[in-house]
Formats: sequence, C-alpha cells, structure tokens
Amino acid sequence: MRITVCLTGNKPEPWVQGLQQALPEAEVLAWAPCQPPADYAVVWAPPQGFVDAQPGLKALFNIGAGVDALLQLAIPPAVRIVRLDDAGMSVQMAEYVCHAVIRHFREFDAYEAEARAGRWTYRAPRERADFPVGILGLGVLGGRVAQAVAQFEFPVLGWSRSRKQIDGVRCFAGEARLGDFLVGTRILVNLLPLTDATRGILNRTTLSALRRGGYLINIARGGHLVEDDLIPLLDSGHLSGALLDVFEAEPLPAGHPFWTHPKIGITPHASARTLRTESIAQIAGKIRALARGEEVAGVVDPERGY
Amino acid sequence: MRITVCLTGNKPEPWVQGLQQALPEAEVLAWAPCQPPADYAVVWAPPQGFVDAQPGLKALFNIGAGVDALLQLAIPPAVRIVRLDDAGMSVQMAEYVCHAVIRHFREFDAYEAEARAGRWTYRAPRERADFPVGILGLGVLGGRVAQAVAQFEFPVLGWSRSRKQIDGVRCFAGEARLGDFLVGTRILVNLLPLTDATRGILNRTTLSALRRGGYLINIARGGHLVEDDLIPLLDSGHLSGALLDVFEAEPLPAGHPFWTHPKIGITPHASARTLRTESIAQIAGKIRALARGEEVAGVVDPERGY
Repeated sequence: MRITVCLTGNKPEPWVQGLQQALPEAEVLAWAPCQPPADYAVVWAPPQGFVDAQPGLKALFNIGAGVDALLQLAIPPAVRIVRLDDAGMSVQMAEYVCHAVIRHFREFDAYEAEARAGRWTYRAPRERADFPVGILGLGVLGGRVAQAVAQFEFPVLGWSRSRKQIDGVRCFAGEARLGDFLVGTRILVNLLPLTDATRGILNRTTLSALRRGGYLINIARGGHLVEDDLIPLLDSGHLSGALLDVFEAEPLPAGHPFWTHPKIGITPHASARTLRTESIAQIAGKIRALARGEEVAGVVDPERGY
Repeated sequence: MRITVCLTGNKPEPWVQGLQQALPEAEVLAWAPCQPPADYAVVWAPPQGFVDAQPGLKALFNIGAGVDALLQLAIPPAVRIVRLDDAGMSVQMAEYVCHAVIRHFREFDAYEAEARAGRWTYRAPRERADFPVGILGLGVLGGRVAQAVAQFEFPVLGWSRSRKQIDGVRCFAGEARLGDFLVGTRILVNLLPLTDATRGILNRTTLSALRRGGYLINIARGGHLVEDDLIPLLDSGHLSGALLDVFEAEPLPAGHPFWTHPKIGITPHASARTLRTESIAQIAGKIRALARGEEVAGVVDPERGY
C-alpha cells in the first residue's frame, strides 16, 4: 500500500516518518510531481493537481477538523474524505473557550489594568445567570466545550443542525430554532463547520439578536463572520467585545481594523493545534481499518459539508 | 431567639434584613454596644469586645471560609465557631484557578502582547504533561478546584493534612509527603487554611522544590507566603511567575515591590467573594438546626484551626 503526504504550508517530513513508523507495511512518501499514484493521502489544503494525480485513491485524510478547504476541490465520489476526530483538539478548544468566558465574566482584563496602575480596586461581582453561554455547533468539539463551560455553572445553550442531547445544556436544533437560541445567549461561541449553509451565519441580524452586552468568540472559520457587520455592533454597545481566532484572510492583513479595535481580541488561529503524535496514531489506525474493508469514523458527507 | 450581626468593614444592613426574612421567628440586630446579648452571631473579623458582650452565645457564624482572624480572639469553648461551607465560593475559586492555569500554560499573555503589536505570531504548543498542577489543601474548595483543573487533562496532584481520595488527582497526605508533592508540581495552587502549622509554608525551601519554571497561585491567605522569599526565586528564573490574590497586609501597600514586579500578577482578594443570598440561606438553615439541638457542618476545631 502506498501513502502520500501533501501538507500545504507545513513540512511533510515529520508526518512521513511518523506514518512510516506506524505503518511499516506501507510505503509512505512526501508528495512530489510524477510519483506513482497512492492508495491513501494525508493532506492539508492540497492543490487540485494533487488530487488529479491520484486516480486510485481510496481515502483522503485531512489533518484538521474542518474540511471546508478540501470540499472546494473536485474529488471523485469514490474517494472517502476523512476528518480528524479529536486528536487532542477538543481539550484545547475547551481551554480556549473557558479561559475567554471566565476572563470576560470575571473582568480579569480590568483587574489587570488596575493592578498595573498600582490600584487595589474591588469590582461588584456579576451574576452568572446574566451570562448564558451559547455554543453554535455540538459535534465532538462543541459538545466538549459546552460541558466544560457548564462545569462553571453558567447557563449553557447549544444549537446544531440535527438534534443533540447533552447533560446540562439546553439544546436547540434546526434553522427554525436559531432565533430562540440567540435571544437566550449572551456569550456566543462559534464551533460550526463552514458549509454553504453556515457561511456568514455571524452577521448583523444574528448578532443583534443576542442579549445586550453580547460577546462573540469565533474559533471555527473566518467565513462564518460577516466582518463588516461586527464593528458597528461593538461601537453601538450592543456587543461588549469579541475574541477572534479565525479570519477571512489569514494571517489577518496589516491595517485590518480588527487589529486596533479596543473591543476585539485576536489570536492567530491558535485555539487548537493539530497534535502530530495523536493524529498520526489515529490516521494509521483508520488506514488499517479501511484496508481490512472496515468502516471508520469521521467520513465526511460532501453534500452536508462535514 | 436573638441574632446579632457584626461585620467589620462591611455594611450589616443587607445581612440583617436577609436573616430577618429567612428567620421571622428571630430578632435580628446589627450589633451596637449596650445591646442585650444574642444567642447567635454572624461575624466578619469582630473585635474582642463584641465577643465579651455575648455571654450566652451558642454559635458564631463566619461569613468567609477562613476563620484565622476569628481564632486570634479569646472565644469561650462552649461557643461553636461555624465557617461557611461553600455558598458559591468553590465555583469562583475553580474559575480563578482554571483561568490562571490555562492562561499560563497557553501563554495567552504573550499572544495578547503580540496582537497589540499587530503581529500574527504562532508559538510552539507546549506539552500538558510538563505542567503538573499541585493543589495545597483538599477541603471543599481545594477538592473542587482540583477536579476542575483535571478536566483540562493536566496531571493533578493534591496535598492535605489528612488522607483524601479524589478521582483523577494524585493525593499526598501529611508533612512527610510534602516534599514528594512539591517535586512533582510545576504550577502550585495554595488553598490551605491559615493555621500555626501552615503559616509561612510557601517559602524559599518549599518553592525551590518545585519543578524549574514553577508558577505560584496563592488564593488562601497572605500569611502562607514568606513574601521576602518570592522575588529572589522569580529573579533567578526558578519560578516563572506568581499570581497573588492575598497578602500579609491588605490592601497591598503602595510601594510594595509586588506591585511593579513584571512576573507577579495581583488581584485584590477577589478570587471568591461571599455571595450574600446563598450565605444567608445557609446560615439561617444552620441556626434552625442548632436551635432544634441538631449538629451542623462546618464547625471549626479550634485546636486544628479549621
């Protein structure tokens, strides 16, 4: 069996070595033009030419959770597209979101500013009940994040396309319930897959529906947010702040107004990094299962988009 | 039954009103000299004269978790000293500690500084296994904090005077095991009660025993830390930072070197505030139980100090 690794923007060597160790029976190659076609491919944002050069491909393994970039390509329907299940990402997302929710709720930014000024200043405690946290997307990542936030006794709401049930989370499902979910939410966390149905879902209408003083945390994809709609809602005071990890263009271009807006926090697509060791073990296990003719978890439905 | 409220530094009125509503059968008074003695007292750091004026006192309810200030007074042995059980404090402590642990581990301070400078800069991810978190004190507060931290998959250690068992936490007990606990710890969280046995427990010897790059979070009492020992350990690099919520003198005096040290974060004894509504309900329930001749939780052993 032959495996090829094509990671745009990332060095393939450590992945090639790791996969070769995990699958000594296979031939693992870093992709180069004019190679013989492979049975399995491990990819991040590959070019169309890569896909076209693999006529016998059985499966494409994406080394991230979101496959939106992959679904822009023409991929033969016989090729399974397999996303990473978790591989250490959900705990990083839970960390990122809990840190942000607690920091906002407890006003630790303001405490830090006071301390830097040498001032010992109490702030009146706020009521947890006034800060319901709403999670958009209740898959492996969203479900873990919702439960992590609920542990701190915030009211937690969740919204997903299909109905989910999660302990301690008030779950809403489907387009028709999105409005009810939003009006009950003050801190909105986006963990949706980016599909035709979810592109631009964070816009003037939906963000205006949040409770006054709303706070946005976007850790999914830049394409979910209509960037021009955000700043007017922050400036009017309807939203109190936003923490953004993903953007339409990454790296966020110099001079973009998000860089300098006082109510916007920016991290460089760092909410969850793909952990190589865990990912290689997971992908190697799935390749062996597919080679035995078994089914595997994480196969993407191209129609649905995730 | 008569109840008196004496809260040094806090307005008694809302407590008097809340207790009166909760216990309509009682007479609830804000303490003033020359009042008739009371059966029960609700206090924060009362003067000795207050205790001396209550010869028939059955119980003193402290509106905080730590009773160290109260144990400085001469209190007749027949008077039960009752501390607050939880009343919303453990979740606040869990928030404070998880926020601090995640912020330190994920280097969100550095990310914020980069973003303020308009720079899109990745940082290499760090290994959770290299950041074991050790909790000193495994009572109601420490136990909750330990479990909250363990949820983020950090290795968690705990140390207490008497043996405890907590899921996901490697528990050490007694003086003889303190060294083993410290050498296994990188992020040290102090939640001990302040007693003769624990005063000064955070000192050059114990803090030097932590793993290199250690980080101290003190949310118990200022008296636990030998303040002069901290800065040399930060300056030598053995400790990478400290987040302090409590101090020998509070408010922390102007000009104290902690205010301006670049590796020290300061909050103004704000890690957990007493929540009045929950506390009043808890104290009222305990007063009724004692009046019926029943025993209640949270009675302090003055010898042990908590």
